[in-house]
Amino acid sequence: MGVKDLQPELALKALGLELPKPALALANYEAWAIVGDKFVSSGQFPWVDGELKFKGVMGRDLDFAESYAACQLAALNAIAQLKAALNGFDRLRRIYRMEGVLNVSPTFTEFPKALNGASDLLVNMFGERGKHTRMIWTNSITPINSPCLVFIYADVASEAAQINQNAEEK
Amino acid sequence: MGVKDLQPELALKALGLELPKPALALANYEAWAIVGDKFVSSGQFPWVDGELKFKGVMGRDLDFAESYAACQLAALNAIAQLKAALNGFDRLRRIYRMEGVLNVSPTFTEFPKALNGASDLLVNMFGERGKHTRMIWTNSITPINSPCLVFIYADVASEAAQINQNAEEK
Amino acid sequence: MGVKDLQPELALKALGLELPKPALALANYEAWAIVGDKFVSSGQFPWVDGELKFKGVMGRDLDFAESYAACQLAALNAIAQLKAALNGFDRLRRIYRMEGVLNVSPTFTEFPKALNGASDLLVNMFGERGKHTRMIWTNSITPINSPCLVFIYADVASEAAQINQNAEEK
Repeated sequence: MGVKDLQPELALKALGLELPKPALALANYEAWAIVGDKFVSSGQFPWVDGELKFKGVMGRDLDFAESYAACQLAALNAIAQLKAALNGFDRLRRIYRMEGVLNVSPTFTEFPKALNGASDLLVNMFGERGKHTRMIWTNSITPINSPCLVFIYADVASEAAQINQNAEEK
Repeated sequence: MGVKDLQPELALKALGLELPKPALALANYEAWAIVGDKFVSSGQFPWVDGELKFKGVMGRDLDFAESYAACQLAALNAIAQLKAALNGFDRLRRIYRMEGVLNVSPTFTEFPKALNGASDLLVNMFGERGKHTRMIWTNSITPINSPCLVFIYADVASEAAQINQNAEEK
Repeated sequence: MGVKDLQPELALKALGLELPKPALALANYEAWAIVGDKFVSSGQFPWVDGELKFKGVMGRDLDFAESYAACQLAALNAIAQLKAALNGFDRLRRIYRMEGVLNVSPTFTEFPKALNGASDLLVNMFGERGKHTRMIWTNSITPINSPCLVFIYADVASEAAQINQNAEEK
């Protein structure tokens, strides 16, 4: 495990959080793809071991704290996919974009702050490598009645670059 | 026509489907763009020769089978754009992402399975080259009253690479 | 200032428009990022100096002309971010994608034409370099009660390439 691997894992521990097992895609698609030096994920849900920890509509079924926690957990699932794809975080250069689809009641105007559950996690875990642009949507119906879906996009070093770097570290 | 061109066309025939003519964009934008080694499409509709084959809201105006077929037809239109952009499929390395915007009734919870109409087509037509990540939204109003819009993103080889490969095949 | 910088600025003047100051992001995320040779923006709002010029729902609180103007102003804000990121427009190769999230009433079927406020601006300001693909969504609740969010994606030359080009121009 390289030095850059350690920092996100330590930050995660300090936050009292842990990564869930990366989930399989729900249908005939992939949970993630690496194309050239880019990682892209499909929509990730706020679940652990296939069970949604949060269900329904933000501002109606979930209060603000639960909505924030749901976005955080969906982001943890996205990070778990990233870690599986890269076999750790050494190859990660930057998570440059995070996108959220949120199911919110018509009066829940603080929904962008709920998505901060994902944004804060990325920045707290990855520092400079977690500084991301962001996109947000509200949808009135979401897959499996999830309050949110979170997507991440990352810039990654090639495997060859990683091997060279590891050699230099020795 | 190269070998890699043949497989998707044969798969299409086996499915009893054919590609519509690539449609023009509806306004002051482009139907697709190639930037470096990436292809991106604008939203594609379930139409043939400028006429929508499916209209309205999934789960209200369209049943499940029609919703699935609408997503399949919109994906066929997206593939027609890709083929026009690349002058065939030889340069296609991978359709790594498919996105769908669906207009669904509040009770049509099986809408993600309707988008499988697009996902299944990509995998059945392109095999490994059709393995894609996915993104899904529900919107309560969509352009020209279409039940769906489908977008694809592909990794493509440069024209130079194609020329070299063709030379080697001879 | 290079020659390619001048054209968009002159076009802007001819349209009687000016770029607002680039706005800060609303939360713990970045207004834009450059990753390799790509620029991506977060959602941009129709505001000037932190004040929304347009509020509410298209087709209910805003008529068509106002909805078009709101999309134009949000695009101006996105262009202001691009200019700040690139320190001008010389490094801009192409704005290859523009995306809009619109808050529209259920009967405002002409909403895609409202987004032409953004599309027309890109093409009028940048010519070939403004030819973009497009994506559109309708959401029933949007951040800070904005009628729209506009996002742009651009292909940009590296800083090194710009320095070389400037040297050749002398």
